[in-house]
Amino acid sequence: MNRCGGVNMRNIVDLNSDVGESFGAYKLGLDEEVLKYVSSVNIACGWHAGDPMVMAKTIALAKENKLGIGAHPGYPDLVGFGRRNMDVAPKEARNYLIYQIGALTAFAHTEGTSLQHIKLHGAFYNMVSADARLASEVAKAIYDVDKGLIVLALAGSELVKAAREIGLRVAEEVFADRAYNPDGSLVSRKLEGSVIHDKDLAIERVKRMVKEGKITAIDGTDIHINADSICVHGDNPEAVSFVKLIRERLEADGILIKPIKEFI
Amino acid sequence: MNRCGGVNMRNIVDLNSDVGESFGAYKLGLDEEVLKYVSSVNIACGWHAGDPMVMAKTIALAKENKLGIGAHPGYPDLVGFGRRNMDVAPKEARNYLIYQIGALTAFAHTEGTSLQHIKLHGAFYNMVSADARLASEVAKAIYDVDKGLIVLALAGSELVKAAREIGLRVAEEVFADRAYNPDGSLVSRKLEGSVIHDKDLAIERVKRMVKEGKITAIDGTDIHINADSICVHGDNPEAVSFVKLIRERLEADGILIKPIKEFI
Amino acid sequence: MNRCGGVNMRNIVDLNSDVGESFGAYKLGLDEEVLKYVSSVNIACGWHAGDPMVMAKTIALAKENKLGIGAHPGYPDLVGFGRRNMDVAPKEARNYLIYQIGALTAFAHTEGTSLQHIKLHGAFYNMVSADARLASEVAKAIYDVDKGLIVLALAGSELVKAAREIGLRVAEEVFADRAYNPDGSLVSRKLEGSVIHDKDLAIERVKRMVKEGKITAIDGTDIHINADSICVHGDNPEAVSFVKLIRERLEADGILIKPIKEFI
Amino acid sequence: MNRCGGVNMRNIVDLNSDVGESFGAYKLGLDEEVLKYVSSVNIACGWHAGDPMVMAKTIALAKENKLGIGAHPGYPDLVGFGRRNMDVAPKEARNYLIYQIGALTAFAHTEGTSLQHIKLHGAFYNMVSADARLASEVAKAIYDVDKGLIVLALAGSELVKAAREIGLRVAEEVFADRAYNPDGSLVSRKLEGSVIHDKDLAIERVKRMVKEGKITAIDGTDIHINADSICVHGDNPEAVSFVKLIRERLEADGILIKPIKEFI
Repeated sequence: MNRCGGVNMRNIVDLNSDVGESFGAYKLGLDEEVLKYVSSVNIACGWHAGDPMVMAKTIALAKENKLGIGAHPGYPDLVGFGRRNMDVAPKEARNYLIYQIGALTAFAHTEGTSLQHIKLHGAFYNMVSADARLASEVAKAIYDVDKGLIVLALAGSELVKAAREIGLRVAEEVFADRAYNPDGSLVSRKLEGSVIHDKDLAIERVKRMVKEGKITAIDGTDIHINADSICVHGDNPEAVSFVKLIRERLEADGILIKPIKEFI
Repeated sequence: MNRCGGVNMRNIVDLNSDVGESFGAYKLGLDEEVLKYVSSVNIACGWHAGDPMVMAKTIALAKENKLGIGAHPGYPDLVGFGRRNMDVAPKEARNYLIYQIGALTAFAHTEGTSLQHIKLHGAFYNMVSADARLASEVAKAIYDVDKGLIVLALAGSELVKAAREIGLRVAEEVFADRAYNPDGSLVSRKLEGSVIHDKDLAIERVKRMVKEGKITAIDGTDIHINADSICVHGDNPEAVSFVKLIRERLEADGILIKPIKEFI
Repeated sequence: MNRCGGVNMRNIVDLNSDVGESFGAYKLGLDEEVLKYVSSVNIACGWHAGDPMVMAKTIALAKENKLGIGAHPGYPDLVGFGRRNMDVAPKEARNYLIYQIGALTAFAHTEGTSLQHIKLHGAFYNMVSADARLASEVAKAIYDVDKGLIVLALAGSELVKAAREIGLRVAEEVFADRAYNPDGSLVSRKLEGSVIHDKDLAIERVKRMVKEGKITAIDGTDIHINADSICVHGDNPEAVSFVKLIRERLEADGILIKPIKEFI
Repeated sequence: MNRCGGVNMRNIVDLNSDVGESFGAYKLGLDEEVLKYVSSVNIACGWHAGDPMVMAKTIALAKENKLGIGAHPGYPDLVGFGRRNMDVAPKEARNYLIYQIGALTAFAHTEGTSLQHIKLHGAFYNMVSADARLASEVAKAIYDVDKGLIVLALAGSELVKAAREIGLRVAEEVFADRAYNPDGSLVSRKLEGSVIHDKDLAIERVKRMVKEGKITAIDGTDIHINADSICVHGDNPEAVSFVKLIRERLEADGILIKPIKEFI
């Protein structure tokens, strides 16, 4: 990695996807498919999604595919899939994290591997991105569990700052299909233009984020962004095709796809 | 420890109690009280009882009291307090264990300590005590998570055998207030005479189990038993008083009370 | 309905299917499809499957399709989909039923409809089919909630007996694709020959059960069976096609497909 | 009830308490004690607290004590006791209510009684008190389930307005031990002076609320308030003594204590 004058001259990036979101009799996501194209995975830890059987299987699959393995802890809201904001106190956030990271770590160890990173899920991700106090508690919790863990967080978020401050390695995450505000935050999904539907445009934006560290915000201005990892989805066949396409185009352009631990 | 000809010449024993069984707004057990008298604790892992806040607090308390710390995994049956038999498949039992042990381990690490042992809870304990196949899967799971863990199991049970076979250290558990069948199993609580209500008698029985490795079964015959740890309770003030009394009487008789890791 | 000398001269039958088994972000079953071909549905009540959003939507769909609406209560085992035997006490079974039936009833009322029947799910269904004491408690609970409810139960089971004894109307359920023992019980899925894979054969068996009240058991003997309702599945497109085929063949043979309340 | 010129000339009031908050092995609240002194109870419905066994028992107790029986639905947050704000959508709030009211209604029916009222719990209560859109959806849900139900809601809240608007009977609830803002809202517990610790003062305030429809706000001004029901607690012996004292003092002053259905 070589950053000079705010310009990211990088030719390497991570592709990450949420996996292991099935639960009991419920199957969600085309894990086997998307695992072929990403370099890191975020595995649900049994609170907003996932269960011990799914976690064991998913860890084994991720190891087999030589992927960077991350814990994907969420709020205790299975029926809401962890997507609803909850007024969780900082100390609760801390202990919820420790619990879920610990559970997934044990599965990693029994499979002879270990965790690369932590990425929060859904409402937990969103609230910690925006709340400095919560972000600080979360960073401390991750540090206390294992200071070797990488924090995968929304580019430019409070968690990026808090994790760097405490001494953790950080990977900043960007979205291929989302519009950005001039301050680097994501344009709310409730607003028009928040989602980039044109695949070619989305991929061009990703390339520029990776290679130049720049993205055109929704107001037309160019802003700086660190694109260490690109969040992609494996919910359905179309989504998986898009991941495949992103990977092919990035590689065709000379960009390497690697787990974040290899370059952070 | 010195065992010759089936006679246990030991003058040391562990006292263990289930703790950390509170949940959210619900308080259960006089943990602060009973922790003064026992040498090891079994901490609930959030499935049949306990939650991340309680786990964090209980680990800290146990460490402060210099106790042997154990995970106390149970069935996923909070409303039944893990006391109801469930038809859990061996592979499920394995993954349920890994999950819960992992979660508690993370709290231990963040507090700068580690786990001494694993003791199953309630219906999980009972079913694994009696089912060789389940016991074998459970022993393997514990071994795979951390082969340094001690298994605290019902004296003479299938889990004692399975854990020894795989190469884990084992502590055999006895009950101060329960009658034993001639084959070493506990007399069912449904039968008359299953519970020893006379405290003096109960303590005398414990002493003999520890010092001679013998207990008089319900039919009057003397049987061999390994009393590495005595299970005691902290549910109410009377229970705690009994624990205090057991400890005093054992110590008065020259028996040392120590965490199992110090003598197993 | 006209039964003489043990022979069922009926030309009417109900087709029932489990629906409303989605949960939060998890979708399960092709409810919209299978609803076109069945006459009654069993709606999950949020314990082993389903949630309040799903229940509201499914009740509305069932009403729109003019189907007989049933509650499908299960054990409190979401991760096990209610399929694992649990040692639930009779009084617990009673209160678990009242809770779930009440919850679904409220959704029926807000949609301007009401419940036709109760059919237990999974392990709850199996355990109550075989256990006279549990069956008696379950029948009493249903009677106490609403004595107008029909009990849809395994043909010849303990619940059929207990429900009749207390004065509830009963519909006996048969399976198109399962082999029967000479005593009228289902051949365990663990045994060879337990599932009838030949669709034409399965449908011929169903027709005979409906029209003659007879089925050929796995040992070749003919046994009596009351086929008030046929259990069918909507898990996948092939299953739905089979339901469509059953319906077409039965109707082609002059058998009417009607909700059980119309002929029980 | 006779209200003229904003002055409430009433000499009757309801005392309500949350009960049935135990869960499985966890006991919470001195229900048997507090039931002697209140006229209405709010029974937890198994989401934030309570379970089917507790609900059945509590309904029976409440009926035996001839109390007004209310459902006390909460958010799906057992570990947080329903006290944490959650971003529940209006349609979710609707269906969560229908589910919980239905479940409790079934227990009431099996005990030969029926529900008098609905009072939301914790964060659900607070959020609906302040959010007009949520309040409107909640009022509609209650109306759709049973338009005969009384809504017991924070005096002056959005739910009071929404429930009146849709045509439901409403009982306004006041707090003996809480300070009020000049706009009639409760002073936040985070602020000094929010809780009235002087029991005599608290009771005098209650009397004036009941008899004059007035309370002195925290800034010293007198404001109008409708005191149809006083919220009291039975968490511990001291709380129960206070309930007993309130009842005695009100009765000594000629104020009748009656379930809200008798005077609303």
